[in-house]
Amino acid sequence: MNFSLQTIDTPALLIDSVKMHENLDFVQKLATNKILNLRPHFKTHKSIELAKLQISKGAIGMACSKTEEALCLADAGIKDIQIANVLTGEHKYNRLVEIHNMVDHLTFGVDCLEHIEEADNVARANDIYFNVQIEVNYGLNRNGVSTKDQLLLLANAILEKDNLNFAGIYTHAGSVYSAQSPEEISEISKESIRLMSHFVKSLKEEGFKCPSAGIGSTPELKHIKKTEHLTELRPGNYIFNDNMQIALGSCTEDEVALYVVATVIGVHKDRVVIDAGSKALGLDKGAHGTNMLEGYGKILDRDSVISRVSEEHGIIDNPQEEFNVGEKLLIIPNHACAVVNLFDRYLLLEEESVSEIKIDARGMSR
Amino acid sequence: MNFSLQTIDTPALLIDSVKMHENLDFVQKLATNKILNLRPHFKTHKSIELAKLQISKGAIGMACSKTEEALCLADAGIKDIQIANVLTGEHKYNRLVEIHNMVDHLTFGVDCLEHIEEADNVARANDIYFNVQIEVNYGLNRNGVSTKDQLLLLANAILEKDNLNFAGIYTHAGSVYSAQSPEEISEISKESIRLMSHFVKSLKEEGFKCPSAGIGSTPELKHIKKTEHLTELRPGNYIFNDNMQIALGSCTEDEVALYVVATVIGVHKDRVVIDAGSKALGLDKGAHGTNMLEGYGKILDRDSVISRVSEEHGIIDNPQEEFNVGEKLLIIPNHACAVVNLFDRYLLLEEESVSEIKIDARGMSR
Repeated sequence: MNFSLQTIDTPALLIDSVKMHENLDFVQKLATNKILNLRPHFKTHKSIELAKLQISKGAIGMACSKTEEALCLADAGIKDIQIANVLTGEHKYNRLVEIHNMVDHLTFGVDCLEHIEEADNVARANDIYFNVQIEVNYGLNRNGVSTKDQLLLLANAILEKDNLNFAGIYTHAGSVYSAQSPEEISEISKESIRLMSHFVKSLKEEGFKCPSAGIGSTPELKHIKKTEHLTELRPGNYIFNDNMQIALGSCTEDEVALYVVATVIGVHKDRVVIDAGSKALGLDKGAHGTNMLEGYGKILDRDSVISRVSEEHGIIDNPQEEFNVGEKLLIIPNHACAVVNLFDRYLLLEEESVSEIKIDARGMSR
Repeated sequence: MNFSLQTIDTPALLIDSVKMHENLDFVQKLATNKILNLRPHFKTHKSIELAKLQISKGAIGMACSKTEEALCLADAGIKDIQIANVLTGEHKYNRLVEIHNMVDHLTFGVDCLEHIEEADNVARANDIYFNVQIEVNYGLNRNGVSTKDQLLLLANAILEKDNLNFAGIYTHAGSVYSAQSPEEISEISKESIRLMSHFVKSLKEEGFKCPSAGIGSTPELKHIKKTEHLTELRPGNYIFNDNMQIALGSCTEDEVALYVVATVIGVHKDRVVIDAGSKALGLDKGAHGTNMLEGYGKILDRDSVISRVSEEHGIIDNPQEEFNVGEKLLIIPNHACAVVNLFDRYLLLEEESVSEIKIDARGMSR
């Protein structure tokens, strides 16, 4: 970079624009080549400007986890929104009704009869139709139905409801984040697609139309084979990548587009202290609670490790190189999605200029 | 509580007002009895309303970690502010000059000659005087001088600068957070005060006035003995307490004043899923990177453990009790300071009414 890091007030979150565009273009092309819709997950970047960029490059719409995120997207004029999560309660449904009236296509997940009952009650009370998708559990054991019988039970329950449309199925093979090798990721990906295909076929055999079948995770992207039943990809992290993706073999260090910029505030005999701690770098050592990474972020072009963090300090014990007070460091975050949620804005580095991008949905966990 | 949790949109951060007032009053009285100034750390609650409450109860001013936090306090009219951290760089000093001109008393930390040189240069350029304190390292090995020689070297360097006033010393005995027993906490606390007393005496023997000598951590509070040389306490967490404090024996579960409210969104054969994950509960298992707690928060009145989190989901594997979809849970956070920084607002529960308190300095890490 020709741009001087010294001008940055730290800790800051810096996007390398060239690399981000390369990441976006690569995955959009990959989806297009495999005749799959790309629906990026909003939870990673939480920025309307970046969501619109993804849509301008060909994404069909956005996925998100929470009703607040969905409302944020709808407010910005995004017309096709999937909440890839199950939900319950009055506040969530009030928001869903509001969003429903703003967009062309809204879907959200269900994975039990209670969800279906509640969704239909609200839809009927508001004289609207909700598009619901059944979440499928593969590997992660979080939300979702695990068997064909459960799936068909729910699909039939949806069919019986006057104000619900069955809008397809989706899964997140989160167990890829515990994989020990690219071969294992490939195997998990293949197996999850096999399960999804089996479920789509089962639904069709029972006379259901299944308009959408989506999977989503960045590690799987390079392993996905063209398949008859799959319709949609829902990755999030790929826009930036991070240490976790490097460790999983999803990308190289050179394909990372996001850094935390920190300043060295102290140089001691046995340690160096920087001004970024857990409130800037997070505590993640992997996704979904896995523990695969050393240190709390990778300092670019250095071998020294951020061995400890407290809230506002990172500590490099036994540094391998020389550091100077006032020096700025570029740090690849362990988990980009978690780190972004700690900041209010990005700095976007384009050639030699820097501009700000708002992280509109930061903290929108409701 | 008579108030119905069902009315809360989750995840939410709920303060029990009665317990918070009890915690504040207890520690204020403890400080007053020991003739020590209480300077609560802003980093825990990051709320102007709560800072003003602490001052109204007798706190001398506020401590914080970052210049943005200090500016937030100054903007709100707080007149005595300590930045208990070392810092460097143009952006930080621009902010320091601004704050200096707004308040009665501002101090910040130094722990090397570069800091002193930079502080004096800025003060001279702006024709002002900065009050600087020397940070002392005890146990945590983060910032700070560790020996008497280092201390006197820096005190003399400050003395030689035209535009710096030596305003005392402070430490944070963060190693209390790795203690295995109350006895060990007591020992660490005693030793850190012994070191501080020794340093104050050494300074006085060399002819320095040492207007302030402060320590700060919640676990130490109950172990502090009245002492000649100590002037100030700088705890943060005590306003709320959390699982970490319970584990350390600093408080009982009944003295915790902060909860994350979450909703059960799924009940499966082998697991229960709630709508609060790492973006609401954090990933902390202890402070300063220690790993002392089971699960990602303690569910009130339940034995079941939140065994896994992903960003927006908490998973209770093999639940010990019955849970129902839609049910609200009160969760004691593992680390209140980290969790607060993920939210924009508190809900303050007083008797049967609930009001909002803004978390003004959330994300202010610069």
